[in-house]
Amino acid sequence: MTVIPRSHPRYRSLVVRAGLAEQMQRGLVVPEGLMAHGRGEAFDYLLGERTSPSAARAERAAAAKLLLAKHPVLSVNGNVAALASREVASVARAIPHLQVEVNLFHRTPRRAELVAGELRAAGVKTVLGVRPTARLRGLASDRSWVDPRGILRADVVLVPLEDGDRAGALVQAGKFVIAVDLNPLSRTAKVAQLPLVDELTRALTRVRREALRLRKEERRTLEKVADAVSGPELRREALRTIQERLLRLSKARA
Amino acid sequence: MTVIPRSHPRYRSLVVRAGLAEQMQRGLVVPEGLMAHGRGEAFDYLLGERTSPSAARAERAAAAKLLLAKHPVLSVNGNVAALASREVASVARAIPHLQVEVNLFHRTPRRAELVAGELRAAGVKTVLGVRPTARLRGLASDRSWVDPRGILRADVVLVPLEDGDRAGALVQAGKFVIAVDLNPLSRTAKVAQLPLVDELTRALTRVRREALRLRKEERRTLEKVADAVSGPELRREALRTIQERLLRLSKARA
Repeated sequence: MTVIPRSHPRYRSLVVRAGLAEQMQRGLVVPEGLMAHGRGEAFDYLLGERTSPSAARAERAAAAKLLLAKHPVLSVNGNVAALASREVASVARAIPHLQVEVNLFHRTPRRAELVAGELRAAGVKTVLGVRPTARLRGLASDRSWVDPRGILRADVVLVPLEDGDRAGALVQAGKFVIAVDLNPLSRTAKVAQLPLVDELTRALTRVRREALRLRKEERRTLEKVADAVSGPELRREALRTIQERLLRLSKARA
Repeated sequence: MTVIPRSHPRYRSLVVRAGLAEQMQRGLVVPEGLMAHGRGEAFDYLLGERTSPSAARAERAAAAKLLLAKHPVLSVNGNVAALASREVASVARAIPHLQVEVNLFHRTPRRAELVAGELRAAGVKTVLGVRPTARLRGLASDRSWVDPRGILRADVVLVPLEDGDRAGALVQAGKFVIAVDLNPLSRTAKVAQLPLVDELTRALTRVRREALRLRKEERRTLEKVADAVSGPELRREALRTIQERLLRLSKARA
């Protein structure tokens, strides 16, 4: 493996990239996942690589919504397992009735096992979706599989790094979809009722922290917090954050 | 292989991605190249996936500069070979004294052979840099290799999709560097004397067309065309293009 010097201006990015490349060699991550990560990186760079005030409000609302849910599920694909298994486990601990489900766009039994293994190693006790038997409508058969104990009966689903078609199928199935997507213009961010336009580990860390804070609040308080944001407004504010940063960068360095 | 429906809104992107993933399985493209492609895709999306007027002027200037050069070289890495071997061959035909050199950040003899094979299959007659024996200063040894008949003695180098450190080392070595980079804020775009902020195949197609048009012009005319643009101005205009598009998109769809 290449040694990455700590002094490199993009040290953290390079370490994450090397980790993803390794996880692709293992079969956890697919080639398409590497390209998707690159797209996310570009948007995160434009967002300033930090949680914007509007994303922070969205993450607080997400925590409230997950606490209010009857059957909340956190959906995990290869990139999510590679990038944030520890954060997934922490969110699952903070929201006791939250279920964690493997959900793969490019599904093979081996990949499902790899994702589940990664999650268990990080401390997730129960992993659903390894051998799913139910299906979501409106999707090609190989990408429609869901667990009847998990996403099939879920009312609120947290889906990080999800494809637009699948996020749309979840909404069609009557779920409240909380997406994590760095591109405020993506189909996923548009179709989700609550898009978190933020980097995955930052988003999950903050959802967990807010859940721990909100856990003892009354339902009425939680409902107020959950209703305090709207998808279109969150996406508009993310675009504004990018615009302002571009303006600053073009003045500072051009 | 997955069949991609022609009706998909991102059909072209998906075909290109599938091709790159395949070329990675062959060893031509490295995992890091897939992530870099994803970053480029995000910026191209923000640029509207077309050549901006300022990029068109930059590509015209690039053609003039290459025609004026004594020893112009087009540097080719794995992603360039996978994405645009045909366009590289066309540029080489349009600028008869242009040399094509394999230039790998992650170099192995096998990858160098794969890149050269891809270029030859596309019609490039002579491929330099397969077994390079000279070095550029200021780079870690494995990434410093250049061909003494090519980049080492070149005065103008066209380097698409290049790393910032290597682009910088070329400038340090006294070369005039024409970069192709979709990110106007990248180190490569900043360090190059002439950054083409455009997608690779569009940029090379236009450089070739302009070279055919300008081929019979006098040196003085070519010099005027080459001097009509400046790097900082081109990057500023690319940022402006992105800003305007974001503004339009945030109004239209939010």
